[in-house]
Amino acid sequence: MADWITAGAAGTEPIWEAGWPPLPPGACLWLTGLSGAGKTTLAQALMQRLRDRGAPVEVLDGDIIRQNLTKGLGFSKADRDENIRRIGFVAQLLARNGAIVIVSAISPYREIRDEVRAKIGDPFIEIYVNAPLATCESRDVKGLYQKARAGEIRGFTGIDDPYEAPLNPEVECRTDQETLEESLERVLGLLRSRGFPV
Amino acid sequence: MADWITAGAAGTEPIWEAGWPPLPPGACLWLTGLSGAGKTTLAQALMQRLRDRGAPVEVLDGDIIRQNLTKGLGFSKADRDENIRRIGFVAQLLARNGAIVIVSAISPYREIRDEVRAKIGDPFIEIYVNAPLATCESRDVKGLYQKARAGEIRGFTGIDDPYEAPLNPEVECRTDQETLEESLERVLGLLRSRGFPV
Repeated sequence: MADWITAGAAGTEPIWEAGWPPLPPGACLWLTGLSGAGKTTLAQALMQRLRDRGAPVEVLDGDIIRQNLTKGLGFSKADRDENIRRIGFVAQLLARNGAIVIVSAISPYREIRDEVRAKIGDPFIEIYVNAPLATCESRDVKGLYQKARAGEIRGFTGIDDPYEAPLNPEVECRTDQETLEESLERVLGLLRSRGFPV
Repeated sequence: MADWITAGAAGTEPIWEAGWPPLPPGACLWLTGLSGAGKTTLAQALMQRLRDRGAPVEVLDGDIIRQNLTKGLGFSKADRDENIRRIGFVAQLLARNGAIVIVSAISPYREIRDEVRAKIGDPFIEIYVNAPLATCESRDVKGLYQKARAGEIRGFTGIDDPYEAPLNPEVECRTDQETLEESLERVLGLLRSRGFPV
Protein backbone atom coordinates (compact mmCIF):
# COMPACT_ATOMS: atom_id res chain seq x y z
CA MET A 1 0.00 0.00 0.00
CA ALA A 2 2.89 2.31 0.78
CA ASP A 3 4.00 2.35 -2.87
CA TRP A 4 0.58 3.27 -4.02
CA ILE A 5 0.19 6.07 -1.51
CA THR A 6 3.54 7.67 -2.21
CA ALA A 7 3.72 7.24 -5.99
CA GLY A 8 1.51 10.02 -7.33
CA ALA A 9 0.07 9.70 -10.82
CA ALA A 10 1.82 12.85 -11.92
CA GLY A 11 5.00 11.83 -10.13
CA THR A 12 4.90 14.91 -7.93
CA GLU A 13 2.06 15.10 -5.45
CA PRO A 14 1.22 12.07 -3.32
CA ILE A 15 -2.00 10.25 -4.17
CA TRP A 16 -3.02 10.83 -0.56
CA GLU A 17 -3.69 14.43 -1.50
CA ALA A 18 -5.04 13.73 -4.94
CA GLY A 19 -7.51 11.00 -4.06
CA TRP A 20 -7.72 7.73 -5.96
CA PRO A 21 -5.91 7.35 -9.29
CA PRO A 22 -8.05 7.19 -12.46
CA LEU A 23 -9.83 3.88 -12.88
CA PRO A 24 -8.60 1.80 -15.82
CA PRO A 25 -11.39 0.56 -18.10
CA GLY A 26 -12.77 -2.86 -17.32
CA ALA A 27 -14.04 -5.58 -19.61
CA CYS A 28 -16.16 -8.68 -19.51
CA LEU A 29 -14.86 -11.47 -21.73
CA TRP A 30 -17.82 -13.81 -22.00
CA LEU A 31 -16.79 -17.28 -23.20
CA THR A 32 -19.77 -19.28 -24.42
CA GLY A 33 -19.78 -22.71 -26.03
CA LEU A 34 -20.48 -26.40 -25.60
CA SER A 35 -19.01 -28.43 -22.77
CA GLY A 36 -15.61 -29.54 -24.01
CA ALA A 37 -15.25 -26.75 -26.57
CA GLY A 38 -12.24 -25.36 -24.72
CA LYS A 39 -13.66 -22.49 -22.63
CA THR A 40 -11.72 -23.31 -19.48
CA THR A 41 -8.43 -23.77 -21.35
CA LEU A 42 -8.82 -20.45 -23.15
CA ALA A 43 -9.97 -18.71 -19.94
CA GLN A 44 -6.86 -19.90 -18.08
CA ALA A 45 -4.54 -18.79 -20.90
CA LEU A 46 -6.23 -15.39 -21.03
CA MET A 47 -6.02 -15.00 -17.26
CA GLN A 48 -2.32 -15.80 -17.27
CA ARG A 49 -1.54 -13.35 -20.07
CA LEU A 50 -3.57 -10.55 -18.49
CA ARG A 51 -2.04 -11.13 -15.04
CA ASP A 52 1.41 -10.99 -16.63
CA ARG A 53 0.47 -7.52 -17.86
CA GLY A 54 -0.60 -6.49 -14.36
CA ALA A 55 -4.33 -6.46 -15.03
CA PRO A 56 -6.81 -7.14 -12.24
CA VAL A 57 -8.42 -10.35 -13.52
CA GLU A 58 -11.16 -12.61 -12.24
CA VAL A 59 -12.35 -15.83 -13.83
CA LEU A 60 -16.00 -16.59 -13.15
CA ASP A 61 -16.31 -20.25 -13.99
CA GLY A 62 -19.83 -21.62 -14.38
CA ASP A 63 -19.14 -24.63 -12.16
CA ILE A 64 -17.52 -22.61 -9.39
CA ILE A 65 -20.29 -20.01 -9.48
CA ARG A 66 -22.81 -22.78 -9.00
CA GLN A 67 -21.12 -23.60 -5.71
CA ASN A 68 -20.90 -20.03 -4.46
CA LEU A 69 -23.77 -18.02 -5.88
CA THR A 70 -26.33 -20.35 -7.33
CA LYS A 71 -26.36 -23.40 -5.13
CA GLY A 72 -29.77 -25.00 -5.39
CA LEU A 73 -30.33 -24.02 -9.01
CA GLY A 74 -30.74 -26.86 -11.49
CA PHE A 75 -30.50 -27.07 -15.26
CA SER A 76 -34.02 -26.14 -16.34
CA LYS A 77 -34.19 -23.16 -18.68
CA ALA A 78 -35.42 -20.93 -15.84
CA ASP A 79 -32.62 -22.04 -13.53
CA ARG A 80 -29.97 -21.75 -16.24
CA ASP A 81 -31.20 -18.24 -16.99
CA GLU A 82 -31.07 -17.26 -13.31
CA ASN A 83 -27.55 -18.70 -13.10
CA ILE A 84 -26.41 -16.60 -16.05
CA ARG A 85 -28.21 -13.53 -14.72
CA ARG A 86 -26.29 -13.75 -11.44
CA ILE A 87 -22.96 -14.28 -13.16
CA GLY A 88 -23.80 -11.24 -15.28
CA PHE A 89 -24.61 -9.19 -12.18
CA VAL A 90 -21.25 -9.97 -10.59
CA ALA A 91 -19.38 -9.50 -13.88
CA GLN A 92 -20.97 -6.08 -14.26
CA LEU A 93 -19.91 -5.02 -10.75
CA LEU A 94 -16.33 -6.09 -11.42
CA ALA A 95 -16.04 -4.70 -14.95
CA ARG A 96 -17.33 -1.27 -13.99
CA ASN A 97 -14.70 -1.13 -11.26
CA GLY A 98 -11.84 -1.68 -13.67
CA ALA A 99 -11.41 -5.43 -13.53
CA ILE A 100 -11.10 -7.75 -16.52
CA VAL A 101 -13.68 -10.45 -15.89
CA ILE A 102 -13.45 -13.70 -17.79
CA VAL A 103 -16.72 -15.63 -17.70
CA SER A 104 -16.49 -19.27 -18.67
CA ALA A 105 -19.98 -20.73 -18.84
CA ILE A 106 -21.86 -22.76 -21.43
CA SER A 107 -24.60 -20.08 -21.37
CA PRO A 108 -26.57 -21.86 -24.08
CA TYR A 109 -29.46 -19.41 -24.49
CA ARG A 110 -29.08 -16.43 -26.80
CA GLU A 111 -31.75 -14.30 -25.16
CA ILE A 112 -30.18 -14.28 -21.71
CA ARG A 113 -26.70 -13.65 -23.14
CA ASP A 114 -28.11 -10.66 -24.96
CA GLU A 115 -29.83 -9.50 -21.77
CA VAL A 116 -26.48 -9.55 -19.98
CA ARG A 117 -24.84 -7.79 -22.93
CA ALA A 118 -27.45 -5.01 -22.74
CA LYS A 119 -26.87 -4.58 -19.01
CA ILE A 120 -23.08 -4.54 -19.12
CA GLY A 121 -22.87 -2.47 -22.29
CA ASP A 122 -19.63 -1.73 -24.15
CA PRO A 123 -17.34 -3.72 -21.83
CA PHE A 124 -19.19 -6.90 -22.82
CA ILE A 125 -17.17 -8.96 -25.31
CA GLU A 126 -18.78 -12.18 -26.48
CA ILE A 127 -16.33 -14.92 -27.40
CA TYR A 128 -17.80 -17.93 -29.13
CA VAL A 129 -15.62 -20.92 -28.25
CA ASN A 130 -16.70 -23.10 -31.13
CA ALA A 131 -16.02 -26.74 -31.80
CA PRO A 132 -18.48 -29.14 -33.44
CA LEU A 133 -20.47 -31.34 -31.10
CA ALA A 134 -18.70 -34.44 -32.45
CA THR A 135 -15.32 -32.95 -31.49
CA CYS A 136 -16.49 -31.97 -28.00
CA GLU A 137 -18.02 -35.38 -27.51
CA SER A 138 -14.88 -37.19 -28.62
CA ARG A 139 -12.82 -35.12 -26.17
CA ASP A 140 -15.34 -35.71 -23.34
CA VAL A 141 -12.87 -34.41 -20.75
CA LYS A 142 -15.28 -34.78 -17.83
CA GLY A 143 -17.01 -37.92 -19.11
CA LEU A 144 -20.29 -36.03 -19.18
CA TYR A 145 -21.24 -36.75 -22.80
CA GLN A 146 -21.03 -40.45 -22.13
CA LYS A 147 -23.34 -40.05 -19.16
CA ALA A 148 -25.72 -37.87 -21.18
CA ARG A 149 -25.85 -40.43 -24.01
CA ALA A 150 -26.51 -43.15 -21.45
CA GLY A 151 -29.40 -41.10 -20.07
CA GLU A 152 -27.69 -40.68 -16.69
CA ILE A 153 -27.71 -36.89 -17.12
CA ARG A 154 -30.82 -35.17 -18.45
CA GLY A 155 -30.99 -31.79 -20.15
CA PHE A 156 -27.36 -31.84 -21.26
CA THR A 157 -26.52 -29.04 -23.68
CA GLY A 158 -25.93 -30.37 -27.19
CA ILE A 159 -27.49 -33.76 -26.45
CA ASP A 160 -31.03 -33.22 -25.21
CA ASP A 161 -30.90 -29.48 -24.52
CA PRO A 162 -30.28 -26.79 -27.15
CA TYR A 163 -27.19 -24.64 -27.67
CA GLU A 164 -27.99 -21.38 -29.43
CA ALA A 165 -24.81 -20.16 -31.10
CA PRO A 166 -24.04 -16.42 -30.99
CA LEU A 167 -25.08 -14.57 -34.15
CA ASN A 168 -22.58 -11.73 -33.89
CA PRO A 169 -19.87 -12.59 -31.36
CA GLU A 170 -16.99 -10.14 -31.08
CA VAL A 171 -14.60 -13.08 -31.46
CA GLU A 172 -15.05 -16.64 -32.66
CA CYS A 173 -12.44 -19.27 -31.86
CA ARG A 174 -12.66 -22.51 -33.83
CA THR A 175 -10.83 -24.67 -31.35
CA ASP A 176 -11.01 -27.70 -33.64
CA GLN A 177 -9.17 -25.83 -36.40
CA GLU A 178 -6.71 -23.55 -34.62
CA THR A 179 -4.18 -23.81 -31.80
CA LEU A 180 -4.70 -22.36 -28.33
CA GLU A 181 -2.09 -19.72 -29.17
CA GLU A 182 -4.11 -18.70 -32.23
CA SER A 183 -7.35 -18.50 -30.25
CA LEU A 184 -5.62 -16.49 -27.56
CA GLU A 185 -4.18 -14.12 -30.14
CA ARG A 186 -7.65 -13.51 -31.60
CA VAL A 187 -8.96 -12.33 -28.22
CA LEU A 188 -5.85 -10.28 -27.47
CA GLY A 189 -6.13 -8.65 -30.90
CA LEU A 190 -9.67 -7.57 -30.09
CA LEU A 191 -8.55 -6.20 -26.73
CA ARG A 192 -5.67 -4.30 -28.37
CA SER A 193 -8.10 -2.77 -30.86
CA ARG A 194 -9.97 -1.39 -27.84
CA GLY A 195 -6.83 0.08 -26.32
CA PHE A 196 -5.99 -2.52 -23.72
CA PRO A 197 -2.24 -3.00 -23.11
CA VAL A 198 -2.08 -6.74 -23.78
CA MET B 1 -9.95 5.49 -21.95
CA ALA B 2 -7.61 7.63 -24.02
CA ASP B 3 -6.43 9.52 -20.92
CA TRP B 4 -5.66 6.33 -19.13
CA ILE B 5 -3.69 4.87 -22.02
CA THR B 6 -1.54 7.92 -22.58
CA ALA B 7 -0.92 8.99 -18.98
CA GLY B 8 1.81 6.65 -17.75
CA ALA B 9 2.23 6.12 -14.03
CA ALA B 10 5.76 7.44 -14.17
CA GLY B 11 4.75 10.29 -16.44
CA THR B 12 7.08 9.16 -19.19
CA GLU B 13 6.22 5.89 -20.84
CA PRO B 14 2.66 5.17 -21.94
CA ILE B 15 0.76 2.62 -19.90
CA TRP B 16 0.20 0.75 -23.17
CA GLU B 17 3.82 -0.32 -23.00
CA ALA B 18 3.95 -0.76 -19.25
CA GLY B 19 0.80 -2.81 -18.80
CA TRP B 20 -1.83 -1.95 -16.22
CA PRO B 21 -1.10 0.60 -13.50
CA PRO B 22 -0.64 -0.69 -9.94
CA LEU B 23 -3.90 -1.70 -8.30
CA PRO B 24 -4.95 0.51 -5.39
CA PRO B 25 -5.84 -1.41 -2.23
CA GLY B 26 -9.48 -2.30 -1.80
CA ALA B 27 -11.60 -2.52 1.31
CA CYS B 28 -14.82 -4.04 2.52
CA LEU B 29 -16.76 -1.81 4.88
CA TRP B 30 -19.24 -4.20 6.47
CA LEU B 31 -22.11 -2.33 8.13
CA THR B 32 -24.03 -4.55 10.53
CA GLY B 33 -26.89 -3.60 12.83
CA LEU B 34 -30.61 -3.75 13.47
CA SER B 35 -33.15 -2.66 10.91
CA GLY B 36 -33.53 1.09 11.44
CA ALA B 37 -30.12 1.53 13.08
CA GLY B 38 -28.97 3.75 10.22
CA LYS B 39 -26.93 1.43 8.00
CA THR B 40 -28.35 2.70 4.71
CA THR B 41 -27.95 6.35 5.68
CA LEU B 42 -24.32 5.84 6.70
CA ALA B 43 -23.64 3.70 3.61
CA GLN B 44 -24.94 6.45 1.32
CA ALA B 45 -22.89 9.14 3.07
CA LEU B 46 -19.77 6.97 2.84
CA MET B 47 -20.39 6.23 -0.82
CA GLN B 48 -20.75 9.91 -1.62
CA ARG B 49 -17.58 10.88 0.22
CA LEU B 50 -15.54 8.09 -1.37
CA ARG B 51 -16.86 8.86 -4.85
CA ASP B 52 -15.91 12.50 -4.33
CA ARG B 53 -12.36 11.28 -3.76
CA GLY B 54 -12.43 9.28 -6.98
CA ALA B 55 -12.63 5.87 -5.36
CA PRO B 56 -14.31 2.95 -7.14
CA VAL B 57 -17.21 2.26 -4.78
CA GLU B 58 -20.01 -0.26 -4.71
CA VAL B 59 -22.78 -0.48 -2.15
CA LEU B 60 -24.09 -4.01 -1.64
CA ASP B 61 -27.40 -3.48 0.07
CA GLY B 62 -29.00 -6.52 1.69
CA ASP B 63 -32.39 -5.84 0.13
CA ILE B 64 -31.00 -5.30 -3.37
CA ILE B 65 -28.79 -8.39 -3.14
CA ARG B 66 -31.84 -10.43 -2.26
CA GLN B 67 -33.34 -9.43 -5.61
CA ASN B 68 -30.22 -10.15 -7.66
CA LEU B 69 -28.23 -12.90 -6.04
CA THR B 70 -30.35 -14.62 -3.47
CA LYS B 71 -33.86 -14.65 -4.81
CA GLY B 72 -35.67 -17.57 -3.26
CA LEU B 73 -33.83 -17.44 0.05
CA GLY B 74 -35.93 -16.79 3.14
CA PHE B 75 -35.09 -15.63 6.65
CA SER B 76 -34.29 -18.90 8.39
CA LYS B 77 -30.82 -19.05 9.93
CA ALA B 78 -29.57 -21.26 7.09
CA ASP B 79 -30.94 -18.92 4.43
CA ARG B 80 -29.66 -15.80 6.18
CA ASP B 81 -26.23 -17.41 6.40
CA GLU B 82 -26.26 -18.30 2.70
CA ASN B 83 -27.35 -14.73 1.90
CA ILE B 84 -24.41 -13.32 3.87
CA ARG B 85 -22.01 -15.87 2.39
CA ARG B 86 -22.92 -14.76 -1.13
CA ILE B 87 -22.61 -11.08 -0.29
CA GLY B 88 -19.22 -11.91 1.20
CA PHE B 89 -18.17 -13.76 -1.95
CA VAL B 90 -19.00 -10.77 -4.16
CA ALA B 91 -17.46 -8.31 -1.69
CA GLN B 92 -14.24 -10.31 -1.70
CA LEU B 93 -14.06 -10.30 -5.51
CA LEU B 94 -14.54 -6.54 -5.60
CA ALA B 95 -12.23 -5.69 -2.70
CA ARG B 96 -9.33 -7.72 -4.05
CA ASN B 97 -9.65 -5.86 -7.34
CA GLY B 98 -9.23 -2.47 -5.72
CA ALA B 99 -12.82 -1.45 -5.10
CA ILE B 100 -14.19 -0.06 -1.86
CA VAL B 101 -17.22 -2.21 -1.13
CA ILE B 102 -19.79 -1.00 1.35
CA VAL B 103 -22.01 -3.81 2.58
CA SER B 104 -25.22 -2.76 4.27
CA ALA B 105 -26.94 -5.80 5.71
CA ILE B 106 -28.40 -6.66 9.12
CA SER B 107 -26.12 -9.76 9.16
CA PRO B 108 -27.31 -10.72 12.65
CA TYR B 109 -25.16 -13.81 13.24
CA ARG B 110 -21.65 -13.42 14.57
CA GLU B 111 -20.32 -16.73 13.27
CA ILE B 112 -21.07 -16.03 9.61
CA ARG B 113 -19.71 -12.45 9.87
CA ASP B 114 -16.50 -13.91 11.26
CA GLU B 115 -16.43 -16.49 8.47
CA VAL B 116 -16.62 -13.67 5.92
CA ARG B 117 -13.95 -11.74 7.82
CA ALA B 118 -11.63 -14.75 7.68
CA LYS B 119 -12.16 -15.13 3.95
CA ILE B 120 -11.69 -11.47 3.04
CA GLY B 121 -8.82 -10.90 5.47
CA ASP B 122 -7.29 -7.51 6.16
CA PRO B 123 -9.55 -5.51 3.84
CA PHE B 124 -12.54 -6.49 6.01
CA ILE B 125 -13.64 -3.64 8.27
CA GLU B 126 -16.58 -4.35 10.56
CA ILE B 127 -18.69 -1.34 11.39
CA TYR B 128 -21.27 -1.81 14.09
CA VAL B 129 -24.12 0.58 13.40
CA ASN B 130 -25.56 0.58 16.87
CA ALA B 131 -28.80 2.02 18.16
CA PRO B 132 -30.93 0.45 20.92
CA LEU B 133 -33.87 -1.62 19.77
CA ALA B 134 -36.28 0.90 21.27
CA THR B 135 -34.77 3.66 19.13
CA CYS B 136 -34.87 1.58 15.95
CA GLU B 137 -38.44 0.57 16.71
CA SER B 138 -39.54 4.15 17.33
CA ARG B 139 -38.02 5.19 13.98
CA ASP B 140 -39.60 2.22 12.14
CA VAL B 141 -38.79 3.76 8.75
CA LYS B 142 -40.18 0.85 6.75
CA GLY B 143 -43.05 0.02 9.14
CA LEU B 144 -41.53 -3.42 9.67
CA TYR B 145 -41.35 -3.38 13.46
CA GLN B 146 -45.06 -2.70 13.66
CA LYS B 147 -45.72 -5.68 11.40
CA ALA B 148 -43.34 -7.86 13.41
CA ARG B 149 -45.02 -6.87 16.69
CA ALA B 150 -48.39 -7.63 15.10
CA GLY B 151 -47.10 -11.07 14.11
CA GLU B 152 -47.42 -10.29 10.40
CA ILE B 153 -43.68 -10.87 9.93
CA ARG B 154 -42.01 -13.83 11.60
CA GLY B 155 -38.34 -14.17 12.44
CA PHE B 156 -37.71 -10.42 12.53
CA THR B 157 -34.30 -9.52 13.91
CA GLY B 158 -34.57 -7.94 17.35
CA ILE B 159 -38.16 -9.04 17.87
CA ASP B 160 -38.35 -12.80 17.52
CA ASP B 161 -34.94 -13.47 15.98
CA PRO B 162 -31.59 -12.72 17.62
CA TYR B 163 -29.08 -10.00 16.80
CA GLU B 164 -25.57 -10.90 17.91
CA ALA B 165 -23.60 -7.68 18.34
CA PRO B 166 -19.97 -7.61 17.15
CA LEU B 167 -17.47 -8.20 19.97
CA ASN B 168 -14.55 -6.35 18.38
CA PRO B 169 -15.77 -4.20 15.51
CA GLU B 170 -13.18 -1.92 13.91
CA VAL B 171 -15.66 0.95 14.29
CA GLU B 172 -18.81 1.42 16.37
CA CYS B 173 -21.24 4.18 15.53
CA ARG B 174 -23.84 4.97 18.19
CA THR B 175 -26.38 6.51 15.88
CA ASP B 176 -28.68 7.38 18.77
CA GLN B 177 -25.97 9.48 20.42
CA GLU B 178 -24.01 11.04 17.57
CA THR B 179 -24.75 12.86 14.32
CA LEU B 180 -24.35 11.30 10.88
CA GLU B 181 -21.30 13.55 10.37
CA GLU B 182 -19.74 12.14 13.52
CA SER B 183 -20.42 8.55 12.49
CA LEU B 184 -19.03 9.25 9.04
CA GLU B 185 -15.92 10.81 10.53
CA ARG B 186 -15.30 7.73 12.67
CA VAL B 187 -15.22 5.49 9.60
CA LEU B 188 -13.12 7.94 7.58
CA GLY B 189 -10.67 8.18 10.48
CA LEU B 190 -10.21 4.41 10.43
CA LEU B 191 -9.70 4.48 6.65
CA ARG B 192 -7.14 7.27 6.97
CA SER B 193 -5.25 5.28 9.60
CA ARG B 194 -4.94 2.56 6.96
CA GLY B 195 -3.59 4.95 4.36
CA PHE B 196 -6.70 5.59 2.30
CA PRO B 197 -6.91 9.11 0.83
CA VAL B 198 -10.28 10.08 2.28
